[in-house]
Amino acid sequence: MKKLINDPKFVVEEMIEGYVKAHPNHIKRLSENDRALVTAKNTAADKVGILIGGGSGHEPAFMGYVGSGMADGVAVGNIFASPPPDPILEVTKAIHKGAGVVYLYGNYAGDVMNFGMAAEMADLEEDIAVEMVVTTDDVASASKEEKEKRRGIAGEFFVYKAAGAAADDGYDLQEVARVARKANDYTRSMGVGLSPCSLPQTGKPSFELADEEMEVGLGHHGEPGIEKSPVATADKVAERLVNDILKDMPLESKNEVAVLVNGLGSTPRMELYIIYRKVEQLLTDRGIHIYRSYVGDYITSLEMGGCSITLMKLDEELKKFVDHPVDCPMFVQK
Amino acid sequence: MKKLINDPKFVVEEMIEGYVKAHPNHIKRLSENDRALVTAKNTAADKVGILIGGGSGHEPAFMGYVGSGMADGVAVGNIFASPPPDPILEVTKAIHKGAGVVYLYGNYAGDVMNFGMAAEMADLEEDIAVEMVVTTDDVASASKEEKEKRRGIAGEFFVYKAAGAAADDGYDLQEVARVARKANDYTRSMGVGLSPCSLPQTGKPSFELADEEMEVGLGHHGEPGIEKSPVATADKVAERLVNDILKDMPLESKNEVAVLVNGLGSTPRMELYIIYRKVEQLLTDRGIHIYRSYVGDYITSLEMGGCSITLMKLDEELKKFVDHPVDCPMFVQK
Repeated sequence: MKKLINDPKFVVEEMIEGYVKAHPNHIKRLSENDRALVTAKNTAADKVGILIGGGSGHEPAFMGYVGSGMADGVAVGNIFASPPPDPILEVTKAIHKGAGVVYLYGNYAGDVMNFGMAAEMADLEEDIAVEMVVTTDDVASASKEEKEKRRGIAGEFFVYKAAGAAADDGYDLQEVARVARKANDYTRSMGVGLSPCSLPQTGKPSFELADEEMEVGLGHHGEPGIEKSPVATADKVAERLVNDILKDMPLESKNEVAVLVNGLGSTPRMELYIIYRKVEQLLTDRGIHIYRSYVGDYITSLEMGGCSITLMKLDEELKKFVDHPVDCPMFVQK
Repeated sequence: MKKLINDPKFVVEEMIEGYVKAHPNHIKRLSENDRALVTAKNTAADKVGILIGGGSGHEPAFMGYVGSGMADGVAVGNIFASPPPDPILEVTKAIHKGAGVVYLYGNYAGDVMNFGMAAEMADLEEDIAVEMVVTTDDVASASKEEKEKRRGIAGEFFVYKAAGAAADDGYDLQEVARVARKANDYTRSMGVGLSPCSLPQTGKPSFELADEEMEVGLGHHGEPGIEKSPVATADKVAERLVNDILKDMPLESKNEVAVLVNGLGSTPRMELYIIYRKVEQLLTDRGIHIYRSYVGDYITSLEMGGCSITLMKLDEELKKFVDHPVDCPMFVQK
């Protein structure tokens, strides 16, 4: 696939360089590690630090979500690969204001290992208390009985949103971690893939699909889903995804939710809104109230085609956090 | 190409339906015409109305830019086709607060005709004063001597930004139109296409390119550019586009600009930031100061691959308008 890049070896460095240059008032790179970025804005004294991170290629995730109301810093990995412990530790040291740091990351073996190691180093070497919260929103990736094995996909956005708001509101370390875990517990996602992306280094498609085929339950790195089937209509796709989510997390009439229809990279907004139209119908038919909606590219996989649907069940506390204003380079909410 | 749609005949209606449902506090559809959308927020009495519009398939443009600080209403056409005069007129009537309405649209035959007819009807039938401002930022689409023949592409975003801010600041009809025309005069864009999109109705690619080929100067509907050439590195592409822009609009050391690196639909943000990195170098080398930057999908062509670069030369007045806060469903600036 054609790409607007220079040397494939340096795509992440060059992206970061461009990013920092484009948003100098928002973000800065730590001199200690060029994969360690932190907010350029002043944060409140004693605020719990929010640290996010993961592989590159998911932009706006993860680095786009550093700013007021979301994360204080991000560790940036290679494409679709976890960052090593070093940048995580450097960000931890930089954003620790005495109140500790919460790590938010998806449930992938590399991330679990590297964030875990960094947390241990932060504790032992720097005496910084760290709480780790692993996101597991993808219902397609494991059964309900093995929920802890599930991958984190677009629902991570809601976990960042809730935890970032709680930290901004002055919650302490345990409380921010509690809010993040609750947000994850209340959140379910499921996606569908229509076309692969390709890694800059190889130029090869990340998975194979026939001409008229889609993959239901596809992961954010092209991990296989539940089944391959002919491309269905937007309405059928929305129905399938919403039904699978509701089977896993039953909602009742009068329940309130936040909805995210997330594009994987190359799916036009037109299609995402057509999907949203049906999601709204399905929820409204069940008496479920949509409190707030997000439609767009929130966590992508380079130029992958397809989308995911995420529902977060809301209580009064989460509603407050969903409403909390955000000012990040790639996401602003008034 | 695979698409998440239902009946191709109704993609625009269903997109609008989803859009209005997703953002009920921001936008509403006029009962008079289902292609006529206006802001759901209260606007100041006597504020000049800002009306934008054009074909669908360019989302976030055009309907994503209705909201505080940008447009008050939008007329939505079919995919890549101008809206007819009716929705334009209905929006005009709805957003006219006694101070007149400014139409902002790209320089395409259909738009020029339909917005012109609507303006005439607004004047004759409704006694509403309308100023029309046509955007012509694409340097690749005609020579400098025939600047008035140029197409409007991503630079329209800056024209909306400036005019929307001026209207919000209480400028009168003539003054808002002056600001919009100045923004257009001070703005130049140029793009490069890597891969086509396909229309839902036909499923056919909008243009043809060989496997390793790119099209320099491509238009937003697949209009042919200046030349086809092998895909170059991001740095070479940025250099070519910036140089062609600066040849057309010479800038001096200490000049200030706003920069927009716009994705056409399926180009990952990673690549846009790699392009931005070089744009920043090229401008900085010339002593040109970047006052503010925008990197992302601002005016797309469904899932087309490629990007455009836009520079708007700034004076004190335009800087103020660039900084003006915006709250639209698809674009928020604090």
